[in-house]
Amino acid sequence: MNSLKVAIVGCGTVGGGVAQILSELDSQISTRSKNPVVLKKIVELDPQTAAERFKLPLNLFCGGGKKLTKDEASSYINEIINSKDIDIVVETVGGTNDFVYNLALNVCKSGKHLVTANKALLATRGKEIFEEAKKKNVHIGYEAAVCGAIPIIKTIKESFTGDDVVSISGIMNGTSNYILSSMQNKGLTFHEALKLAQKKGYAEADPTLDINGHDAGHKLQILMNLSFGSSVEMKQIPIQGIEKITKEDIDFAQEINCNIKLICYAQRTNGNLYATVQPMMVKKENVLAQINGATNAVRINNRYSGEHVLIGKGAGSLETASSIVADIVFIARYSSVDQNPYNNEDLTFIDARHFNFPYIITFETGDKPGTTGLVTTAIGKNNINIDTVSHNRHNRNNATFSVATMPCTLEQIDKAIKDIREASPKMLLEEPKIIPILF
Amino acid sequence: MNSLKVAIVGCGTVGGGVAQILSELDSQISTRSKNPVVLKKIVELDPQTAAERFKLPLNLFCGGGKKLTKDEASSYINEIINSKDIDIVVETVGGTNDFVYNLALNVCKSGKHLVTANKALLATRGKEIFEEAKKKNVHIGYEAAVCGAIPIIKTIKESFTGDDVVSISGIMNGTSNYILSSMQNKGLTFHEALKLAQKKGYAEADPTLDINGHDAGHKLQILMNLSFGSSVEMKQIPIQGIEKITKEDIDFAQEINCNIKLICYAQRTNGNLYATVQPMMVKKENVLAQINGATNAVRINNRYSGEHVLIGKGAGSLETASSIVADIVFIARYSSVDQNPYNNEDLTFIDARHFNFPYIITFETGDKPGTTGLVTTAIGKNNINIDTVSHNRHNRNNATFSVATMPCTLEQIDKAIKDIREASPKMLLEEPKIIPILF
Repeated sequence: MNSLKVAIVGCGTVGGGVAQILSELDSQISTRSKNPVVLKKIVELDPQTAAERFKLPLNLFCGGGKKLTKDEASSYINEIINSKDIDIVVETVGGTNDFVYNLALNVCKSGKHLVTANKALLATRGKEIFEEAKKKNVHIGYEAAVCGAIPIIKTIKESFTGDDVVSISGIMNGTSNYILSSMQNKGLTFHEALKLAQKKGYAEADPTLDINGHDAGHKLQILMNLSFGSSVEMKQIPIQGIEKITKEDIDFAQEINCNIKLICYAQRTNGNLYATVQPMMVKKENVLAQINGATNAVRINNRYSGEHVLIGKGAGSLETASSIVADIVFIARYSSVDQNPYNNEDLTFIDARHFNFPYIITFETGDKPGTTGLVTTAIGKNNINIDTVSHNRHNRNNATFSVATMPCTLEQIDKAIKDIREASPKMLLEEPKIIPILF
Repeated sequence: MNSLKVAIVGCGTVGGGVAQILSELDSQISTRSKNPVVLKKIVELDPQTAAERFKLPLNLFCGGGKKLTKDEASSYINEIINSKDIDIVVETVGGTNDFVYNLALNVCKSGKHLVTANKALLATRGKEIFEEAKKKNVHIGYEAAVCGAIPIIKTIKESFTGDDVVSISGIMNGTSNYILSSMQNKGLTFHEALKLAQKKGYAEADPTLDINGHDAGHKLQILMNLSFGSSVEMKQIPIQGIEKITKEDIDFAQEINCNIKLICYAQRTNGNLYATVQPMMVKKENVLAQINGATNAVRINNRYSGEHVLIGKGAGSLETASSIVADIVFIARYSSVDQNPYNNEDLTFIDARHFNFPYIITFETGDKPGTTGLVTTAIGKNNINIDTVSHNRHNRNNATFSVATMPCTLEQIDKAIKDIREASPKMLLEEPKIIPILF
């Protein structure tokens, strides 16, 4: 029986969790893998801290437990890449700089399997890494890169092969979902909720990527290219964060039986592919509306088997690490390598502006008679069916009201707003807020 | 490239769906399998009906499309089992009689892979079939046997290998869930709801196995033996159906912020294993409480990654068939065979009476003063902490009231009821109803 030898590069929150699980489940993992799995080496700048946090022996660390300079770490990494005694490298450094990119690429080039939780790297610079893995016939395990503990990658890759994925929608960023949940359940403003999330450890000191939607976008891009066999790039996906969501938006959502969620959405229709990351009004009947706090959830609609929902922890040390260990076991069990079972279909990625959604359009106007008539007439003239018009929400001298449309395109809505501006140049006090409705 | 040759035995609701998907997704399936997958033969007593329903050519059917007697079908099945030109047999006959048991067993004996949706067969007579498959190094694909389209088998088998399953709870029978949902949302009695389910096609003419909990029990047994590496037999699992649930129970559940659901529950604690299938009061915060109609949902709690929920279609022709096709693709992609990656741990299956749950105990008594005091005193004397006592629900000359307990054993509750009977022999007008609360 050949043993499978693992090296971990980066022993922080996730990498340390992997080392801990590999050591705690040692004999089970070997049984499950049908081969002994041996953790041989860890590269980490500060081994002492990691060893204490994850109860690891210091002699597992390159350098024997002493602090490493970046140069020393680099040279240990090169040793690992060139070693014949390592089969799998777990990359848990994070980031998208050249150092990490080259590390991932060189692991594949050396004929070793790569397991990573690095969604940003795979989404922005993954193409060459996947190509290199294919060329060298090695696995890339990236279950941990998308929604932490939720086994969405293997579900699509191994369990939906008797079907076709039609659409994906999901809550894929725990930080922003925690903020939106707190705004709703505790009546906080966006900034108060963000501070609370930071205090509770759900948001980083710099929460930019979480609240501007880009972290969620990375996950959507990875899921799309897996499910649809497409090669959509990050920059093609329109992404909008939650920074502009106000308490008033949250309150209004309740009025129309919705919760506001940051939704990743992708759909395949007639050879076209459409995707967006943005806040949406999610109808309360939709299970995604019920996902609170830092939990993640992915809803997949399939051609034959209909709707599936997977709910679980989107982050966390051991939670994410358990996905990495499952990838290691999978590689050990199945020598057969296959990055993506799906056809590279001839799908055209289309501009979000041409896709049909029902929308909520919120207008802020002066509090004058005739406003509603003018606005709804302009909307009707652009061939948009109106579902409901909400009552005015008066606020000092202004009035805010919302129009719920039947499915239409952003192009139609933009044209209607242009018509309103031409008919009454000073009527709209703010840029109207346009939010899709998810059923 | 070797092609993989498939035979389907039984071309009804599920088998026909498999044939339809294999034909509609033909080229995709071959790409995903890395080998051409060819449907070679179908055995079906009434080919004409099946061919029309699933748009299949008659020449796929053994006998060329003419109706078969049972003897003719048996002889075609034997031909398939003895053929060198078939690699996978899909068993979609159903039932647990000797004919089907021998069919499944002989497929494995002949060195062919078996794919089946037959939960009853695997749960009641699966042991020898799994042993034979292990001996002959062939796959048994049974994703479709547990919760139809939900990929719970592969999720446990391939995605939770970096973790340990601690507990399983789920709604695994769509018929009974449809009945309970209708009782709750439409105010129907059990018998009205059952009739509605039959009218809508959610319940069979003979719905016994669905409403008495045994169909759900079959699925729980299969999931337990996979997740825990145990060898629990069906007869060891205490099973209670939904036949005795009344409108009053449903109404009372609402009062205490619960919905009543037929829950499959299994838990591993300190080397012990516990399981039950029975109606439970499910707290509304638990996502299982929100699952309505014929949908299924499985909640798994893991040691490292915490709570996972999978929601999807539990039945249906193409829904279940898509799981079978995914098993076929998996077998084609991964030659490596492994029935169960989990250790056969030294787990003791313990009597449900010794396991701790919080319970709702509902007493029907004469409407007399002193009753509550007597009952709660007896409960307290048996070391059961009381959470709440509901107000009396008066009903003619009787009173019904419920006691919500903190976690305790059924043994304690039985003792308390015995004490009540001894103190006041005629007080209890009915056997008290005991329902666990699921948080």
